[in-house]
Amino acid sequence: MMGNLEHIRVIKVGGNVIDNPEALQALVNDIAAMKGPRILVHGGGKEATRLSARLDIATTMIDGRRVTDAQTIDVVTMVYAGLINKRIVAMLQAAGVNAIGMCGADGNVIPAKKRKAAPIDYGFVGDIDPQMINDGLIATLLDSGIMPVFCAICHDGEGHLLNCNADSVASAVAIAASRICRTDLTFCFEMPGVMADINDPDSLISSIDRERYAELKAEGIVSKGMIPKIDNAFDAIDRGVSSVTICRSDAVNSATGTVITA
Amino acid sequence: MMGNLEHIRVIKVGGNVIDNPEALQALVNDIAAMKGPRILVHGGGKEATRLSARLDIATTMIDGRRVTDAQTIDVVTMVYAGLINKRIVAMLQAAGVNAIGMCGADGNVIPAKKRKAAPIDYGFVGDIDPQMINDGLIATLLDSGIMPVFCAICHDGEGHLLNCNADSVASAVAIAASRICRTDLTFCFEMPGVMADINDPDSLISSIDRERYAELKAEGIVSKGMIPKIDNAFDAIDRGVSSVTICRSDAVNSATGTVITA
Repeated sequence: MMGNLEHIRVIKVGGNVIDNPEALQALVNDIAAMKGPRILVHGGGKEATRLSARLDIATTMIDGRRVTDAQTIDVVTMVYAGLINKRIVAMLQAAGVNAIGMCGADGNVIPAKKRKAAPIDYGFVGDIDPQMINDGLIATLLDSGIMPVFCAICHDGEGHLLNCNADSVASAVAIAASRICRTDLTFCFEMPGVMADINDPDSLISSIDRERYAELKAEGIVSKGMIPKIDNAFDAIDRGVSSVTICRSDAVNSATGTVITA
Repeated sequence: MMGNLEHIRVIKVGGNVIDNPEALQALVNDIAAMKGPRILVHGGGKEATRLSARLDIATTMIDGRRVTDAQTIDVVTMVYAGLINKRIVAMLQAAGVNAIGMCGADGNVIPAKKRKAAPIDYGFVGDIDPQMINDGLIATLLDSGIMPVFCAICHDGEGHLLNCNADSVASAVAIAASRICRTDLTFCFEMPGVMADINDPDSLISSIDRERYAELKAEGIVSKGMIPKIDNAFDAIDRGVSSVTICRSDAVNSATGTVITA
């Protein structure tokens, strides 16, 4: 336990919400209405893909991860650490939240390791060890009433910026925060949670444990981008995070969504 | 006086140095070699102009200030707050300096006011009142051994990012820092200082007071972008900064350059 912190909420917001100005503003308002220390982690892949296209830089995705060559790390640094991060910070400030936008290089808060070039060379893509996260700086900021807003650009400590997965950053930050005090993690996006039938809005699965997760994967109900998100959720719970919820961005202050339980 | 801080150095680095990887690395090394609390403020206009051109966005400059429409504020936010700021932070971290990159919206550290649309409508361009700068956050960071790295993107507190002049940001930050403790300001760029003859490297003017400044302007020796820089320097000295030096980026740790004296 550090400082006087008793409870931290970590909220991850995905690219489709960021792409929707009304949804993003509503989320900012909901964050402003929350009590107590909180941390936001954001993605922004769609905007990065659009900027790459405008700059005639090809976008290559493998298993949902962006292959990040030298030109592409510049693009994602501009979009995530610049445009989106500062836009969100300005919106939060206007809503009365003293936010500070950071990438992982800032204050060396989230060191990463460049992924090995084999079997797939993703380029400037990094992976994070939650143990390496600078929870002291996070605690200092939260204790001062400041809300960190993290994008998923990290660094290797040797001068290279690395593109990391925003869900993994959120999970790692929540694990680090759980060393400070009780921490809850919410992944919010454009869906009400994990759905049994993607076309049926009433098919929300209210909770998933490991057994149910294995079934859902076997049945093909959980697939693609949802798999790493749920894997990150279980990892967070196993490593100290009190609860993980997957919900729609307008439900961060309600109890609706999919709760991931050990 | 706040905390245990006794002396702060504020260093402004201009766009031509940022554009030159060797010069920038040398400056980073010199900053790493400095003792004590320091703050870096950076520009980056040339890179913003290049990105605008690649995106087919016209660049309009009036009296050396960029007319900043809605598309252009996105460009400068990406380039200044994203690409250049994080690149410099990663370089400083690699050199052992615990840097944190910020725009003025982060921690509400540098609030700005949108410039009036008359007589010239510069769009999303802001001006800064040094009195409004959050010196408490700056002191907290410096006291924690963290070096703030500021770009010149600020905000109006109502959700709008504003493009400010980096020399003015440096001057205002130095004035704010001088409320914490003794502060020296260095503007470093690609020239040895203010030159009597731009083509003669031996013509460095070693010091300028107000009287000499009036003469230099009347003679046309000081003109264009150097005028607001020197105006900012005098403003800083008048408002509490102990010294202002204009020098080449490889001279920040030596005594060579042009000293501005009251």
